[in-house]
Amino acid sequence: MTTTTPVTATWRTGSGEPLDTATLARIDAWWRAANYLSVGQIYLLNNPLLREPLDRDDVKPRLLGHWGTTPGLTFLYAHLNRAIQEREQSTIYVAGPGHGGPGLVAGAYLDGTYSEVYSDVTEDAEGLRRLFKQFSFPGGIPSHVAPETPGSIHEGGELGYALSHAYGAAFDNPDLLVAAVVGDGEAETGPLATSWHSNKFVNPAKDGVVLPILHLNGYKIANPTVLARISDDELNSLMVGYGHKPHVFVAGFDDESHLDIHRRFATVLDEVLDEIADIKARAANGDVARPMWPMIVLRTPKGWTGPDYIDGKKTTDSWRAHQVPLASARDTPEHLQVLDRWLRSYRPEELFDEDGRVVRDVRALAPAGPLRMSDNPHANGGLLLKDLRLPDFREYGVEVPVPGGSISEAPRVLGEWLTDVVRLNPDNFRIFGPDETASNRLQAVFGVTDKQWNADFYGPEVDEHLSRAGRVMEMLSEHQCQGWLEGYLLTGRHGLFTSYEAFIHIVDSMFNQHAKWLKVTREIPWRRPVASLNYLLSSHVWRQDHNGFSHQDPGFIDHVVNKKAEVVRVYLPADANTLLATYDHCLRSRNYVNVVVAGKQPAPNFLTMDQAIAHSARGLGIWEWAGTEAPGEDPDVVLAAAGDVPTLEVLAAADILRRELPDLKVRVINVVDLMRLQDEREHPHGLSDREFDTLFTQDRPVVFAYHGYPWLIHRLTYRRNGHANIHVRGYKEEGTTTTPFDMVMLNDLDRFHLVIDVIDQTPGLGQSQAGLRQRMVDARLAARQYTREHGDDVPEIRDWVWPDAGDAASSTEVAATIFTGGDNE
Amino acid sequence: MTTTTPVTATWRTGSGEPLDTATLARIDAWWRAANYLSVGQIYLLNNPLLREPLDRDDVKPRLLGHWGTTPGLTFLYAHLNRAIQEREQSTIYVAGPGHGGPGLVAGAYLDGTYSEVYSDVTEDAEGLRRLFKQFSFPGGIPSHVAPETPGSIHEGGELGYALSHAYGAAFDNPDLLVAAVVGDGEAETGPLATSWHSNKFVNPAKDGVVLPILHLNGYKIANPTVLARISDDELNSLMVGYGHKPHVFVAGFDDESHLDIHRRFATVLDEVLDEIADIKARAANGDVARPMWPMIVLRTPKGWTGPDYIDGKKTTDSWRAHQVPLASARDTPEHLQVLDRWLRSYRPEELFDEDGRVVRDVRALAPAGPLRMSDNPHANGGLLLKDLRLPDFREYGVEVPVPGGSISEAPRVLGEWLTDVVRLNPDNFRIFGPDETASNRLQAVFGVTDKQWNADFYGPEVDEHLSRAGRVMEMLSEHQCQGWLEGYLLTGRHGLFTSYEAFIHIVDSMFNQHAKWLKVTREIPWRRPVASLNYLLSSHVWRQDHNGFSHQDPGFIDHVVNKKAEVVRVYLPADANTLLATYDHCLRSRNYVNVVVAGKQPAPNFLTMDQAIAHSARGLGIWEWAGTEAPGEDPDVVLAAAGDVPTLEVLAAADILRRELPDLKVRVINVVDLMRLQDEREHPHGLSDREFDTLFTQDRPVVFAYHGYPWLIHRLTYRRNGHANIHVRGYKEEGTTTTPFDMVMLNDLDRFHLVIDVIDQTPGLGQSQAGLRQRMVDARLAARQYTREHGDDVPEIRDWVWPDAGDAASSTEVAATIFTGGDNE
Repeated sequence: MTTTTPVTATWRTGSGEPLDTATLARIDAWWRAANYLSVGQIYLLNNPLLREPLDRDDVKPRLLGHWGTTPGLTFLYAHLNRAIQEREQSTIYVAGPGHGGPGLVAGAYLDGTYSEVYSDVTEDAEGLRRLFKQFSFPGGIPSHVAPETPGSIHEGGELGYALSHAYGAAFDNPDLLVAAVVGDGEAETGPLATSWHSNKFVNPAKDGVVLPILHLNGYKIANPTVLARISDDELNSLMVGYGHKPHVFVAGFDDESHLDIHRRFATVLDEVLDEIADIKARAANGDVARPMWPMIVLRTPKGWTGPDYIDGKKTTDSWRAHQVPLASARDTPEHLQVLDRWLRSYRPEELFDEDGRVVRDVRALAPAGPLRMSDNPHANGGLLLKDLRLPDFREYGVEVPVPGGSISEAPRVLGEWLTDVVRLNPDNFRIFGPDETASNRLQAVFGVTDKQWNADFYGPEVDEHLSRAGRVMEMLSEHQCQGWLEGYLLTGRHGLFTSYEAFIHIVDSMFNQHAKWLKVTREIPWRRPVASLNYLLSSHVWRQDHNGFSHQDPGFIDHVVNKKAEVVRVYLPADANTLLATYDHCLRSRNYVNVVVAGKQPAPNFLTMDQAIAHSARGLGIWEWAGTEAPGEDPDVVLAAAGDVPTLEVLAAADILRRELPDLKVRVINVVDLMRLQDEREHPHGLSDREFDTLFTQDRPVVFAYHGYPWLIHRLTYRRNGHANIHVRGYKEEGTTTTPFDMVMLNDLDRFHLVIDVIDQTPGLGQSQAGLRQRMVDARLAARQYTREHGDDVPEIRDWVWPDAGDAASSTEVAATIFTGGDNE
Repeated sequence: MTTTTPVTATWRTGSGEPLDTATLARIDAWWRAANYLSVGQIYLLNNPLLREPLDRDDVKPRLLGHWGTTPGLTFLYAHLNRAIQEREQSTIYVAGPGHGGPGLVAGAYLDGTYSEVYSDVTEDAEGLRRLFKQFSFPGGIPSHVAPETPGSIHEGGELGYALSHAYGAAFDNPDLLVAAVVGDGEAETGPLATSWHSNKFVNPAKDGVVLPILHLNGYKIANPTVLARISDDELNSLMVGYGHKPHVFVAGFDDESHLDIHRRFATVLDEVLDEIADIKARAANGDVARPMWPMIVLRTPKGWTGPDYIDGKKTTDSWRAHQVPLASARDTPEHLQVLDRWLRSYRPEELFDEDGRVVRDVRALAPAGPLRMSDNPHANGGLLLKDLRLPDFREYGVEVPVPGGSISEAPRVLGEWLTDVVRLNPDNFRIFGPDETASNRLQAVFGVTDKQWNADFYGPEVDEHLSRAGRVMEMLSEHQCQGWLEGYLLTGRHGLFTSYEAFIHIVDSMFNQHAKWLKVTREIPWRRPVASLNYLLSSHVWRQDHNGFSHQDPGFIDHVVNKKAEVVRVYLPADANTLLATYDHCLRSRNYVNVVVAGKQPAPNFLTMDQAIAHSARGLGIWEWAGTEAPGEDPDVVLAAAGDVPTLEVLAAADILRRELPDLKVRVINVVDLMRLQDEREHPHGLSDREFDTLFTQDRPVVFAYHGYPWLIHRLTYRRNGHANIHVRGYKEEGTTTTPFDMVMLNDLDRFHLVIDVIDQTPGLGQSQAGLRQRMVDARLAARQYTREHGDDVPEIRDWVWPDAGDAASSTEVAATIFTGGDNE
């Protein structure tokens, strides 16, 4: 890693001259070296230069890895190196077929970067031995492209996100070329299939360029690929339909001279880069209309340059080359021979000098310093990360004269602040969402920016807040939003993703991969911290409105907390000021995934800004104004809430208890930071047992109203002293309804039911308060009946406000605001 | 619902005559009626026939629903009705834009089906009032197409699966036409974008036909759609690239006569259906090569026939028509007027008779009986479901002379049985997987069937087990596999989906939607039970081999158990015979989602077939042969395992304890059915507390080795008496390694660590067994050291077998088999 300054690209046009034979030979030698290093990584434990005859003990006991895709990846790496050097074009490489880990590691090693960041993997015979041994070996490196791989922003695990990541990297990096290799296996995935359309969202002047390279090697694990088995015309049409100008290159499948192949491919690559330079030049002159961006179809044999047949079965150019073609090389002498011939076919003696160092002429193909794809600072985004300029969120807070004394749509308040975040950070902050930014109430941002769009425009009557450059990215694909954002963050920028809570499960597995990436990077010293991935889930389970049962699922939180505690944070702010304080914290944080759930419907505000700041900082706390406990004494019962709707119901229950059972000492606790509930040994935010006991008591009943599946609260608190006394109400996969109170009733989270829980859980009350209990039961039945008849909630419930708020906000006004806000999907 | 006999389609060619004016007028009247009923559902509480002047109180207090997509859906419904009647073509309708619930409900009502299945929604004015009121109303029906909607197999919630479901329905239904409407919003999702390629997997002779209709109404919630804003040439290319022959229809956007529009569209539809008839005729004559299947691009205004402008803002043909265009109709007199004019524009007085019944001429457009799309039995698949013919799984069992006395790859054994399941059920059972059927060890099935494929063939040298018809469906898209299978099951067939455990999270949200569908259908009497959705997760977290950290995530189980207990089952069979017994049960079950996790690597068998049957039936039990407890007494400690790798380590720990602490009374419990751990009040499979206590004791330490995230065991058992004594080891997001024992060590689930846990948890042992404890610590360190050096596990660990198995299986043989089986991704 030599610099933190990004390279300035010039989008130069090439020389127009065909390459001379020396350059072609150098490309070929580089390619042979990379392939040799790749095969070496997969198979060899010792004897890395084959200076001794290959012995069975030189072969690893467990052969793991993926050869098939690798030679295509190294071929592209070699050619890109040549072009980068010629054009001084800042370029990063996204390897969609991340299985081909050895190829990218080989590239970084040939670049010299590998030895710079891993000083024990030296540029000599011993370093080569270590390079080979560590691959897919206990205590070594993974077989896939991974955070450990210099130059990568793209995990080689789950397929489908190569183009989304590439475009995410390109946004706001006008001088960056992202070479994105798409495997034809990956191309069958849904996320990849839609991500081609990213070209309708990129701005030719203000953003960088993605060069998609569809690598058709024809096979997956055990099958041909779809795109390799449709006609050339269909494939061509598909790419044109995706908005690309395809350049088709077919590698020789027989004994054609490699130099000829290199010459032909270099010509294609130069054509493509010249077309890109031309588009960039036009864009610089103001023509930013969407061009047909070039892309390359690269058709090669799978496992190219490997053994053609093994045991009489076609291997190269078949699915049999996918993984480790000679799995029994250690135990089958003929296979060992084939491996030996295969390795020597790359002529290692020409590629490495006496000491095992790559010979100068080969090494000379690598560009200098950060022009090396493995050393490009964009691929280690933390190097380029700048703090956001954040306006003081306190100035955006809402007035809360008394608790419940004003009403807000919390995300709308957040939107005002985000508007200035956008304004102050015009080139390194973006908001991503699947057509829901306004629906999720962040529409204020459209006062200062637009949705970036580069497909056709129809005019202002219908195209509101749509323009060729803007900070909001909307496409109806959660995969795209997440993938774009990941690419944007990993290249050193900031952003957030708003989505409906139910649909965020669409990206469960993408979240997994990103969280795992973050976890691993924390242990890699040269990987600098990147901005956190921030979610805002504003259309949540408790207000379905236009949407049905299928839109209800609060389980993303459960999914998230399965990941390593050090990288995940979950916040459930109960009102607007708390949301502001929380989000300010999130946008300042690094290397986390922050999940923030905050409903978008009008709801009462409870905390002043100062209170909200203190409450957010603590993560949870007693709301003394809401309880009836005596100072210095333990309460009779604790009412706890996490989430905005549960908080409302808990307060309404506290109100009933205060009126009906004035002697009952009730403590009200509100939880913002869910991780605080966990043991301090489990999560860095976790409370100590002493702190937990001080809040929740060791022996008093706790009636806990939770936003999501109730299990999670038990899971987070099961080691706590008072756990047996915690009684949780939450979402339980029940029904569908369209009125808010009916919804909480369906799930037994309503105020009446919470009061019933208090009566049932508090010793003595069951008997003494049978009458109150029955009134609660009756109230629920009456409320249910009313909604069935009127299609709306009982006014007394709908219009309820926290009693102290009576003066500040007339209850009817409040009610009118709370219950008429429409949902917007 | 009039019949359970599927209609026999004839794939007739149309008359070739243009439609007469009376027919066109009937289509238009039907369309007007469906639109009237749709608007009525969204807005009206009373006055359904507008026989009185429209009053504000006739309007619902909360206006919810989606108008924008609806008129396009009803337009297609009307035209399909006409064509179905003429051709007697069995047809179902998949509404991708499922938001348009009112449209499909209106269709079913006009067909007469609605009143047949919901007898209180009569065909008169009172029935209309109920139809209107119930829509998106507490206690009513959801606003989306849902299980409650007759004729639907497709939930209108999360977008992206219309085509996958449609193709799933078409497989093995050679006479069925599936009209699949794809919204242009949905078309932006990843799953939908790849699902067009389903046409490479359908067999023109043996399968039905999917007619994709891309409905370009141009807008989403607040944005234009991508496909509506690319050039006609690009869109055309895209469809050709997807393998379709597009037929473009542009509805008049101005005052064009509706009859003319109907005439033009009917012509397009007839052309398309004639092309399909022609393809089917050719296929019947043996030409089953993939044709360019026709599809329709239907370009209409969004909110077609609704108010053009509201408050001066363009509404129809803009995103403003997406939801409820006149949200304040109740409180704004001008809006009420607009609504009145809008409703009356459909001329309800011509459409309903005095009693409120649909007039005969309109009703006449509906086909007869099960030819009605709303009554087609394929859309209520349970009606057509036949039991599978299941071979006696006991005959496929493996010999287990003594526990651990033989070695199997459990899924390979299952594959032998599945081979005969395939053979015995040649047209109603399919296996779905993302290129992993062989990798997951089910390759035996290729002895009797092939992978169905209809793209190009390259010949037997590379195309193994690939043919134009076969029972295995492989595409590298978990979304497609899941979507196809869902469509296949919901139309009354059987199947299973094999996937890597880590990647099954890709379909988390699809699982959600299917589980919710099942939950709701259980409460709908006319929906007959369908076959369960069966997963087989055979490449699990504990054996990563070729794959890295990114491939590790056992959290799908956690995700699944969040859903309603009555629809989910999770099984972790520890050996081959148990897997057989489990899967036989799964394939016989109905209306569940069954998740079965079973590793594919060679592993010892512990139970004879008889034992396995008993063990599976109980779901968990004491393995007496593995323990050292005295009969009739409580043990000193319980070692429990759920999952194959945890079982192996628990047994190895039990072996150590037996040798080192012969006086310690150890009980060994194995859990197959995870739901048994839950309370009987939480899950129908749950143990009673008494049963649980009998097994796990109330007060002895339980060291529990679990396949997944340890939390889940706490979550399932937190109410149990002995919960405080349960100490769980499971997967904890650690590291990446390539040797099996190193992997379990990384997660502290290894035998040595389990022994340490026993020592630490069992009163008295901590002090007395400090020496043994230290030896265990040392053994772990030595084992770790060895893997780092040799790339393989210590032979004594790798070769360990259950001591009683010593005679039956030589330990070296066993070891050789256990640790050389390669992984295959």
